[in-house]
Amino acid sequence: MAKYREIPGGVVAPLGFLAGACACGIKQEGYDLALLLSNRPAQTAALFTSNQMVAAPVKLNKETVKKGPTRALVVNSGNANACTGPQGYLNAMAMAEATARELGLSSSEVLVASTGIIGQPLPMEKVIAGIKEASKKMGRDPEHGTSFARAIMTTDTRPKELALKIEVEGRTITLGGAAKGAGMISPSMATMLAFITTDATLPKKQLQECLRNAVKRSFNQITVDGHMSTNDTVILQANGASGESSLRGEGLIAFQEALEHLCQKLARAIVEDGEGATKFVRIRVEGAKREKEASIIARAIANSPLVKTAINGEDPNWGRIISAAGAAGITLDEKRLRLYINGSRIFEGGMPAYSSSQETQDLMRGEEVNLLLELGLGYADAEVWTCDLSEKYVTINAKYHT
Amino acid sequence: MAKYREIPGGVVAPLGFLAGACACGIKQEGYDLALLLSNRPAQTAALFTSNQMVAAPVKLNKETVKKGPTRALVVNSGNANACTGPQGYLNAMAMAEATARELGLSSSEVLVASTGIIGQPLPMEKVIAGIKEASKKMGRDPEHGTSFARAIMTTDTRPKELALKIEVEGRTITLGGAAKGAGMISPSMATMLAFITTDATLPKKQLQECLRNAVKRSFNQITVDGHMSTNDTVILQANGASGESSLRGEGLIAFQEALEHLCQKLARAIVEDGEGATKFVRIRVEGAKREKEASIIARAIANSPLVKTAINGEDPNWGRIISAAGAAGITLDEKRLRLYINGSRIFEGGMPAYSSSQETQDLMRGEEVNLLLELGLGYADAEVWTCDLSEKYVTINAKYHT
Repeated sequence: MAKYREIPGGVVAPLGFLAGACACGIKQEGYDLALLLSNRPAQTAALFTSNQMVAAPVKLNKETVKKGPTRALVVNSGNANACTGPQGYLNAMAMAEATARELGLSSSEVLVASTGIIGQPLPMEKVIAGIKEASKKMGRDPEHGTSFARAIMTTDTRPKELALKIEVEGRTITLGGAAKGAGMISPSMATMLAFITTDATLPKKQLQECLRNAVKRSFNQITVDGHMSTNDTVILQANGASGESSLRGEGLIAFQEALEHLCQKLARAIVEDGEGATKFVRIRVEGAKREKEASIIARAIANSPLVKTAINGEDPNWGRIISAAGAAGITLDEKRLRLYINGSRIFEGGMPAYSSSQETQDLMRGEEVNLLLELGLGYADAEVWTCDLSEKYVTINAKYHT
Repeated sequence: MAKYREIPGGVVAPLGFLAGACACGIKQEGYDLALLLSNRPAQTAALFTSNQMVAAPVKLNKETVKKGPTRALVVNSGNANACTGPQGYLNAMAMAEATARELGLSSSEVLVASTGIIGQPLPMEKVIAGIKEASKKMGRDPEHGTSFARAIMTTDTRPKELALKIEVEGRTITLGGAAKGAGMISPSMATMLAFITTDATLPKKQLQECLRNAVKRSFNQITVDGHMSTNDTVILQANGASGESSLRGEGLIAFQEALEHLCQKLARAIVEDGEGATKFVRIRVEGAKREKEASIIARAIANSPLVKTAINGEDPNWGRIISAAGAAGITLDEKRLRLYINGSRIFEGGMPAYSSSQETQDLMRGEEVNLLLELGLGYADAEVWTCDLSEKYVTINAKYHT
């Protein structure tokens, strides 16, 4: 069994990656532009939003990843460059070109990501100046990784990054990642922005397969508010700096495990930093006929504002959970249903499974709430992670202004 | 063209209907038990929740309406009698039996409805005492109608009732109705509790058809929080007291129109009184390929917490509207999309349709917000009514305790 351990450094922990960031004035304050550079071509896997309204940088990246390995990434926060028409696409291209110019690359080797307000033109003078400034600050100390993670934040309250070192078959492979939430987070192809680097060597097709597997069990099972973004992007760059031969067998399994662990940690960090969140909520649905049905029910519970506000109020109002499940459009048998809150059986055989509400009143205290719903219909399971819905969520989103 | 006009009286405005209500202590304060009696058998149409978790009174009513005309209705608020197992069903039957006993009917002529907290046994001593007390207070003055409307409230802040008088082909027909919201409101077969009375004469099949048509364009197009209840019920009782011959032709059309008007007014009242609501929001999607697709998109917009909080903040953050539409799972062509907010074109050809954000900043002031999204793909339309999401919604639902 291969082992991985957490190390500092985020996206610059793997060999051959450098990052730089600066504040160029797109946001009112704080870093808002970041660059990531691999000193050698990196095989690139990517997953993008399935929203029909696709942001300009996502359109550009879809073309770029088709062309071959990439070398760099430019990200801005504070403006999503989405719903910005043909000029938006030209602006995304201009970001890639300016980055290529500063770093001595071809623009077809540069990926572009934007996050923030929708429908406003990017302030290109600021962006180009920011690219110039960030390119002068590139480095691979852990603080460069953290600056990168910080520059991609919008309503996030803290940077989200992680790096893992794997020792396998006498080789050392490193994985690094940074992600941002914290609103417009909902399960989909790829949810929010996440950038993952590795010095592992893998052919593109296998890399894409590894990423798809990991994302399915991490970013795709989280939801903050059920609202899928126009910009959701997960990019994995593998530059092979750890050694020439491709991973296979045990090495490949270890890589897949570590990648999944990294994605899960980042996904969980996004939920924990969800807008206004006070609790992390794990919703597991077991015993469905099909995985898809388990997932639909878990998401229906996770996206119910009544369930989320009850959890915020630490109120084990399980009727809202059961009725959200019942409204998901999947045939259920209420006599077979069982609901557990933090391990305590609450509902069974169509009625409460406790004798006094005193038994349940403290069940939702604490920072983590685990809901398990057994359907008793089959053998398929699904899990979704979410957070509660607080007054602060409303305040943040009623005030975050265009 | 037939005409209808609004009159006082709610459910007791039509000939031959009496109502009574009292406070029996299920809720902490206020009326919580109501009776409705027709002095002759009434053909009965009904629509119920499509939630898989069906409350006990809904199960019982489904049997009762199959059996034939009904005479009475008993409703309690404060306890939904849902997820209460076999005892819950026995309790619903006991409510029908007690009502039948007090009013001199057979229990198979009595419909039962409950609304409130899920998963707690009905306090049957209080309920039975309440039925006795309410039966002594029956009357057909307008205040009896209002007492009925008041007794079915939970988190509603005001009673919702209406009556209409129709003059057609020399006859006078009256329709009355009462409804309650205000949380767990989402489009479905039949949403929330609504009770409609009429002295019109109609065969049951036609009555059900009229109700289905009216509900489709009223209760089924509203959503407060996207959470479908276990108890949703719309009942229409037609006792024929206005005259013996069945409505047809122009009379039937006038009846259908008035019924639709009544249902729309009650549905709108529910949304306006949505938990924490400060604005009424009409979302119209035009130019879809299919009505179902228009409806899915309209509901995706209506249920997006990001859209609802933006409206609460009077922020015309249309990117949230466009991205919610794009995430609905329906293929769109962003170049054909047009979005209007309160009549102003905001988005067209994949980008903003205004030159400065000053033009848009006041668009969401006022108590009503109209969103119109043109897809440009076909000829099918749909409309959904909702309200904004305020901090107060969270407060209400984090504190409304089991």
